[in-house]
Amino acid sequence: MSRNTLSLDDIRGAWVIMPTPAREGADDPLARDTVDLDETARTVDALIQAGVDGIMSLGTLGECATLSWDEKQAFVGAAVEAARGRVPFFAGTTTLSTRETIEHTRAVRKLGADGTMLGLPMWCPPTLRMAVDFYRDVANACPETAICVYANAEAFRFDYPAAFWAQVAEIPQVICAKYLGIGTLLRDINASKRRIRFLPVNNDYYGAARMEPDFCTAFWSGGAVCGPELVTSLRDEVAKARGTGDWQRARKLSDAAAAASALFMPPGGFAEFARYNVGLEKARANAGGWMNAGPARRPYHELPTGLLEGAQKSGQRWAELAQQVRDGTFFA
Amino acid sequence: MSRNTLSLDDIRGAWVIMPTPAREGADDPLARDTVDLDETARTVDALIQAGVDGIMSLGTLGECATLSWDEKQAFVGAAVEAARGRVPFFAGTTTLSTRETIEHTRAVRKLGADGTMLGLPMWCPPTLRMAVDFYRDVANACPETAICVYANAEAFRFDYPAAFWAQVAEIPQVICAKYLGIGTLLRDINASKRRIRFLPVNNDYYGAARMEPDFCTAFWSGGAVCGPELVTSLRDEVAKARGTGDWQRARKLSDAAAAASALFMPPGGFAEFARYNVGLEKARANAGGWMNAGPARRPYHELPTGLLEGAQKSGQRWAELAQQVRDGTFFA
Amino acid sequence: MSRNTLSLDDIRGAWVIMPTPAREGADDPLARDTVDLDETARTVDALIQAGVDGIMSLGTLGECATLSWDEKQAFVGAAVEAARGRVPFFAGTTTLSTRETIEHTRAVRKLGADGTMLGLPMWCPPTLRMAVDFYRDVANACPETAICVYANAEAFRFDYPAAFWAQVAEIPQVICAKYLGIGTLLRDINASKRRIRFLPVNNDYYGAARMEPDFCTAFWSGGAVCGPELVTSLRDEVAKARGTGDWQRARKLSDAAAAASALFMPPGGFAEFARYNVGLEKARANAGGWMNAGPARRPYHELPTGLLEGAQKSGQRWAELAQQVRDGTFFA
Amino acid sequence: MSRNTLSLDDIRGAWVIMPTPAREGADDPLARDTVDLDETARTVDALIQAGVDGIMSLGTLGECATLSWDEKQAFVGAAVEAARGRVPFFAGTTTLSTRETIEHTRAVRKLGADGTMLGLPMWCPPTLRMAVDFYRDVANACPETAICVYANAEAFRFDYPAAFWAQVAEIPQVICAKYLGIGTLLRDINASKRRIRFLPVNNDYYGAARMEPDFCTAFWSGGAVCGPELVTSLRDEVAKARGTGDWQRARKLSDAAAAASALFMPPGGFAEFARYNVGLEKARANAGGWMNAGPARRPYHELPTGLLEGAQKSGQRWAELAQQVRDGTFFA
Repeated sequence: MSRNTLSLDDIRGAWVIMPTPAREGADDPLARDTVDLDETARTVDALIQAGVDGIMSLGTLGECATLSWDEKQAFVGAAVEAARGRVPFFAGTTTLSTRETIEHTRAVRKLGADGTMLGLPMWCPPTLRMAVDFYRDVANACPETAICVYANAEAFRFDYPAAFWAQVAEIPQVICAKYLGIGTLLRDINASKRRIRFLPVNNDYYGAARMEPDFCTAFWSGGAVCGPELVTSLRDEVAKARGTGDWQRARKLSDAAAAASALFMPPGGFAEFARYNVGLEKARANAGGWMNAGPARRPYHELPTGLLEGAQKSGQRWAELAQQVRDGTFFA
Repeated sequence: MSRNTLSLDDIRGAWVIMPTPAREGADDPLARDTVDLDETARTVDALIQAGVDGIMSLGTLGECATLSWDEKQAFVGAAVEAARGRVPFFAGTTTLSTRETIEHTRAVRKLGADGTMLGLPMWCPPTLRMAVDFYRDVANACPETAICVYANAEAFRFDYPAAFWAQVAEIPQVICAKYLGIGTLLRDINASKRRIRFLPVNNDYYGAARMEPDFCTAFWSGGAVCGPELVTSLRDEVAKARGTGDWQRARKLSDAAAAASALFMPPGGFAEFARYNVGLEKARANAGGWMNAGPARRPYHELPTGLLEGAQKSGQRWAELAQQVRDGTFFA
Repeated sequence: MSRNTLSLDDIRGAWVIMPTPAREGADDPLARDTVDLDETARTVDALIQAGVDGIMSLGTLGECATLSWDEKQAFVGAAVEAARGRVPFFAGTTTLSTRETIEHTRAVRKLGADGTMLGLPMWCPPTLRMAVDFYRDVANACPETAICVYANAEAFRFDYPAAFWAQVAEIPQVICAKYLGIGTLLRDINASKRRIRFLPVNNDYYGAARMEPDFCTAFWSGGAVCGPELVTSLRDEVAKARGTGDWQRARKLSDAAAAASALFMPPGGFAEFARYNVGLEKARANAGGWMNAGPARRPYHELPTGLLEGAQKSGQRWAELAQQVRDGTFFA
Repeated sequence: MSRNTLSLDDIRGAWVIMPTPAREGADDPLARDTVDLDETARTVDALIQAGVDGIMSLGTLGECATLSWDEKQAFVGAAVEAARGRVPFFAGTTTLSTRETIEHTRAVRKLGADGTMLGLPMWCPPTLRMAVDFYRDVANACPETAICVYANAEAFRFDYPAAFWAQVAEIPQVICAKYLGIGTLLRDINASKRRIRFLPVNNDYYGAARMEPDFCTAFWSGGAVCGPELVTSLRDEVAKARGTGDWQRARKLSDAAAAASALFMPPGGFAEFARYNVGLEKARANAGGWMNAGPARRPYHELPTGLLEGAQKSGQRWAELAQQVRDGTFFA
C-alpha cells in the first residue's frame, strides 16, 4: 500500500463519484454492517474496466454523513482491494471536526486510499481563515494524502472566494477540487495559479474545456454509475475536439447527458434538490440498472413520489444513452 | 444509575448550558484527551450548589462538533458523577446520522445522563418528515432517555413549523426544547398541546413568563457560567412576580442580563455570531472568572480582536451583575 | 384639513390595514382608474362605525406597488373625505427613492392624511445609515406628517436592528411601527426609549399586551376587513384583562383569530406567502363578504387554486367568528 | 424617430451601461432637475466615437430607482439626440408595477429609445408565471420596443430558471438579456433556442465567447466609462481569436480588466456590493476621469471610506489600462 502521493498531473479524465452500495434494510434506524461489499467491489472493478480515470467516494451521495466509521473502513478496504491500484481512489473523510477528520484521513490512507474528497466541518459556517486552516491542518497531519477540496457552498455554507483558492493552492496536498458550476472557474484557476485541477460536473465539462482547453482536462460525474460509457465517451470526444477544433460531437453528448440530468432536478430547484440529494441519487443509480446502490440511509430516507419518478426517468434515460454509445448508434 | 425517565414536570427553573472545559493545548489539531475533567466536576458541583435546576451540555457552545467520542464519554461520566443526581443532566448527542445518534444516546444514558439535548443531522437540510422521523427513531431506540429538542434554525437549517411541534409532541420522550426567540412561542405551545416545555434563553424568559405565566416556568442560559446567581435570581423574581403581579424587579434583572449579553453580539448580527459562536461563548465564560472553559477547539479557533474584546466585556459585566446579586446591592 | 400632527398617544387600539378596492378589470395590464372609490368610502365609514381606532393603507396588501400615483391620490382623497377626521388615517408613500417619497408624502398630507406608513426604498438592500437617513430626510421635509415605520424585513431587505430603533426614535415624526412578530419587541421598546408605539399584528397582540401591558396598547390587522368586530372585541377584552388579571377571554379570541389566519398561510411558509401576499389578502377579504376588495393588480395576479381556497376558507372563518362576536355567542 | 424594431442580429459587440450624470447637489433630498444633460450628451457621443456598439441606461447604476420620471425623460431625450441613431440605445423602465412600466416604456420609445433594459417589479418576489406574464404584458403593449431582460437575481429576487428563458424566448420583442455570470449560460442558450442574445459582463465575455464562439458575440460593461477602449479592444481581440484560434491577447485583456474590477469588490462579497452598488459604480466612474458621473442620489449616498478607496483605485487602474490600449503599449 506504499503508493506515491498524487500530484496535479494525476488528475485527468473522467472521474466517477460512486454511491456506497447498501444492503437491504440499510434504511432501518438500528441496522448495522449496511454496506454491500460485494457490490462495492463489483462496481469499482466495472468502472475501471469501462475506462474511467479515477473514483471518488463518501461525499454527500456516498452517504459520508450516515455511514458508521466501521462501515466506512469496510467500504474503503473493499474498494481499494478491487481497484488494485489501476486508478486513483479518493475516500471522503468529512466530519464535524478537524481532529476527527485527521484521524479518519490517516486511517483511509493506511487502507490504501490515494486521497480524500474533503468538505469543511459544517456545524458553524466557517470563515475564510477557519476554512484555509482546516485544509492546512489536515494536510500537515497527513502529508502523503492528496486532498480534493469538496466545494459545495450549500452543504458547507462557505462561498469559496478567490482568496480561498489562492491560499489553499499553497498547500501541496491540495491538488484538485470537486467543483460546482463554471461561473467563477476562470477566476479560480487564476487565483490558484493553476496548481489546483478544478473538476466540473460532466454537464459543465464541455464549457470548461472550451474555455480552458489546456488546463480543464478532468471532470466528475455522479450519473456515470448509470452507464460509464457516457462519460468516457465525453472525455474522448472533448480530447479529439481540442485537436480538430470541431466540437459538435462533444456538444451533442454533453447536451444529451444534461437533458437526462435535468429530469431528476426537482421543481423547487437546487434548494429542494439539496433536501433530497441522497435519495435522488440512489434512486437514479438503481433505475439505471448498471449498479445496485440500495436504499438511502436515515434520516435521508424520504423521497416523495414525484421526485422518485423523476430520478428513475433520469437514470433510465442515462442508461439508454450509455447503451447508444456502447452500440455505436449515438452519433449515427 | 437506574434513574427514572424524566417528564414534563421535571423541567422547571433555571437551566444552564455549560461549555466543555478544555485543557491547555486543546486547540492543537493533534491534541487528545482535551477535556479538563477536574474543572468539569468542579463546575457541575458549583452550579448545583448555586441552585440551578438543571444542566445541559454538548450543544454548539459545548463543542459537540469538535470533541471526540472518547472525550464526550469522559466528560459525561465526570459530570454525572459530580452531579450525584441532584439535578437533571442532559448530554448532547447530535451527530450526522440517525444511527450514530442512537448509539451515542444509549451510551450517555448508560453513563447516567437523564436526557439528550438533540439537534438534527445537518449535512442536508431536512424536510418536516425527516425531522419528525429522526426524533421518533431516536425515542423508539432509547425509550428511557428524555429528549430536549435543540431548536436552532440556523445551525440545523430547519425552521421548526407548528406542524413539527404538533408531531413531536406525540413522542413521549420529547419533553422540552432549547428554544430561540419568543416570536412563535404561543403558536408552538398551542401546537404541542402543552406537552413540551419550551425553554427560552434567559433574555426572553421575562417576556415568556408574562405571556404564559402558568406554563413558561423554565429557561436556559449560557451566560450563567459567568455567575449563576443572575439566573437563579431571575427565576425567583419571576416566581414572585407571578404571585404579586409586580414585575419590576424581574424586568430590571432581565434587562441587565440582556444588556450584558448584547456586548458580545458582533456588529454583523446573528449571521456573524453563528460563525464565531463557540469562540465567543468560551471567551465570555473565561472572562467571567467563574469557570475556566479553556480554548475553543479546531476549526473554531479564530476570534477577531474586536469580537474577543466584546465577549470579554460581556463576561465581565455579567460577573459584576452576579456579584451585585450575591451581595444584595443589585436592587438597592 | 389643518389637523394637528399626531403624537405617540394618538396611536392606541385596533388599527386596520385596508386593501385598496379595485374595480372589475383592474387586473388588466392597460387598465386605468382602477380604484373603486365608492367602495373605498363605504369601507372607511363602516370601519369607523364599527369602532376601529385608526386606518392604514397603501402598504403591500394595499397595492402601493401597483397603483398609479393618480389612483393613489384619488383613493386617499376619497378615504379622507369618508373618515371625516373621526380616526387617524395613514397613507403609504413607499417608493423607490427618497425624493419621490417626499413628494408623495407632502401630497397625501395636503389631501388630509395624518401620516404615512412608510417602507424603505427597496432596489438595493439599505445599510443602517441609509435606512435611518431615509426616515430623517422624509421627516425633515414633511414636518407635520406622522410616520409609521413599515417594518417588513422580507420586503425591504433590512433587519431592523436595535440600533435602528434607537436612532429613528430620535425623529419626532416617527411615532409608531407596523411590526411583525414579537421576538424582539422588548428589545426594541427598550432601544426606542418608549418613543415608538410598536403595533404587532392581531395574532401577536395578546402576547405583546401581556409582556408590556402598559405600553403595548395598539395593534394592526389585515383580516379585520372580513369583520372588524373581531379586533375591536380583542382590543376591549385585552383592556379588561389588564384590569382584572383574567386573560382567558382575550386568549380565546386571539387563538380563534390566529386559527383563522393560519388557514391562509401557504404550505411553503412565509417565503411562499411573500410571493402571493397581495392575492391572498384580497381573496381573503373578498371571501369574508364584509367588503369588496376586487382583483389583485398586475403583476401579482396569480394565485394557485390551493392557495386561493385556503384564503377563502380563512376569510369565511373570520367572518363566522365576527358574526359570533356580534351576536354574543362567541363566549357563550 | 421612426426607427425599426431591433432584432437579435442588432445585438452584437461591446455594449456600455452608462451612469446618469448628476449635477452637484443631486444627493440633496430636495434636489430637482439633477441630471447633467450636457455631460449626458457628451458621454453618449464620446462612447459612440470610441466605437462602442450599443448603450444601455437606467438600470441599477443608472439610478433608475432614484431619478424622477421627469428627469428620466430629460435624460433619454438628451441621450437619444446625442446618439443620432448611430448605435442602439436602451432606456431602463423598471418600476414597481406592470402598468407604470408600460406607460414609461411607451414614453421612452416616443423619445427615440430603441429598447428597454427591463427588470421585474420587486416589491414581492415574483413566481415564474408572474415574471413571464410581466414581460409578455409589456411586449404586447409596446410591440415596437426591444426588450433586454435585466436579469439580476439579487435585486429582483428571481432566479431565472431555464423554464423562464424558454418562455420569454417566445416573445418576439425579447431579444437580449443583461446577464450575470456564465454558470448557466449554455443551459439558457439551449432553453431559449438561441432566440435571446445573453450579454455577459466584460469579465465573463472571454469565457462565454470560447464556449459559444458563434453565438456569444456581445457583452456589457459598466467599467467602460472609465475608458471604452478596453472593451472595444476586447471585442476586437475576441473576434480575431475566433478566426485564428489564438486567444492569448484576448485573455490578457480580459484578465487585466477583471483585476481592475476586483479592486472595487468589497471584502463582504456580492452581498456587500449590492448595498453600495450605486455609490461604488459612480465613484469608479468619477475616478476614471473619462466622464463625470457626479454624486449618487438618495438613499444610496453612503459609501464607507474603505469602499470608496477601492472604487477609486479600480477606476484609476481601468483608466491606465485604457490608456495603454490607446497608445499601443498594452500588448507590447
